[in-house]
Amino acid sequence: VFEFEQLSYEEGERRRRRYEPLTESVRQLIDATVRTEADDATLATVKGEIDAALAKLRHDQREGTFGISATPDGRTFSWSNVVIGLRNPMAPPLVVEHDTPDKAHLDVHLGAAYEGPPGHLHGGYSALVLDHILGVTASRNDHRTAAATGTITLRYRRPTRLGQLHAEAQIQRTEGRKVYAIGHIADAEGITVEAEGLFIVVKQPG
Amino acid sequence: VFEFEQLSYEEGERRRRRYEPLTESVRQLIDATVRTEADDATLATVKGEIDAALAKLRHDQREGTFGISATPDGRTFSWSNVVIGLRNPMAPPLVVEHDTPDKAHLDVHLGAAYEGPPGHLHGGYSALVLDHILGVTASRNDHRTAAATGTITLRYRRPTRLGQLHAEAQIQRTEGRKVYAIGHIADAEGITVEAEGLFIVVKQPG
Repeated sequence: VFEFEQLSYEEGERRRRRYEPLTESVRQLIDATVRTEADDATLATVKGEIDAALAKLRHDQREGTFGISATPDGRTFSWSNVVIGLRNPMAPPLVVEHDTPDKAHLDVHLGAAYEGPPGHLHGGYSALVLDHILGVTASRNDHRTAAATGTITLRYRRPTRLGQLHAEAQIQRTEGRKVYAIGHIADAEGITVEAEGLFIVVKQPG
Repeated sequence: VFEFEQLSYEEGERRRRRYEPLTESVRQLIDATVRTEADDATLATVKGEIDAALAKLRHDQREGTFGISATPDGRTFSWSNVVIGLRNPMAPPLVVEHDTPDKAHLDVHLGAAYEGPPGHLHGGYSALVLDHILGVTASRNDHRTAAATGTITLRYRRPTRLGQLHAEAQIQRTEGRKVYAIGHIADAEGITVEAEGLFIVVKQPG
């Protein structure tokens, strides 16, 4: 069980609105850095501008992370999470939609910065996406519940094209705190990677 | 088999030197964005500076990705790869050291931007790191060989603390093009996640 900072929903939303615009700009900057064909002079100018902006942000920063905040009614705000963090430019971000208490899906565009083989998603990144959606599904859309991965197995049918992707997950069965879930990720031509995992569900205090 | 752009080693090194400084600055900016406690006025100023820099990079950019380039003697430059890309600020980057033809390790510092549970590495990101090091190990340090993940299973012993991490992989056995590899990732207190996988090894043309 991990410590969550307690705050009101209004304060959570206020912080989200405060940090999301900068986060989105840096997200765009990552994509542009991977794809630019700018000349040497432009690259040097841009680096200087980034370094100046960086110094302003570094002037007042936390030693560790902002972790996760929880509201009294059990809603959560993830700030630095690598796939959903509201303050993390590396997060695509993934947004899981719950279809039923046992089933969920997500749609996401993953571009150049998520590459493995040329033009294709890194196989390990599809593992990261599937670990996330299976874990969220195992927690049954209950914000007071966290699902820790016990084991997960990925089967790669073929490479996943970069671009618009779709992932699904569903619970197969439960045994006490153990939840067994399966899922897959697909590109425009169909399923590319399948996953099955065992998750241990833990109630958050509060 | 994927298409690699052919170039000389000198040209590859020239491009590396050209893009690495900007990439490193944007990598630092990601970390600062996740950790800053700057006030609203500073955040707005910084966002304006980033957007101006972004427009300069976007002015001349490739539609797709820069993929992987290969030299005549079989060395490769990965430009946008999500964990090793020389132009990708999201890449930590991972640097695999080959101990023997069958065994490899890596040491990497993963900070706030790689978070899952508060203060800990995202479980799916450890899957990404392990997929990478097992795949590189399966290809036996032969730059003309690529290993595609067939299946991989991750077993989570306990959460991995953010900070300095160590990963290892080794080949267990081979059957023709099939290579079976195992490995683990560890934080300062020991092994946290174990992996085993089957990789399909393919020779690159050229």
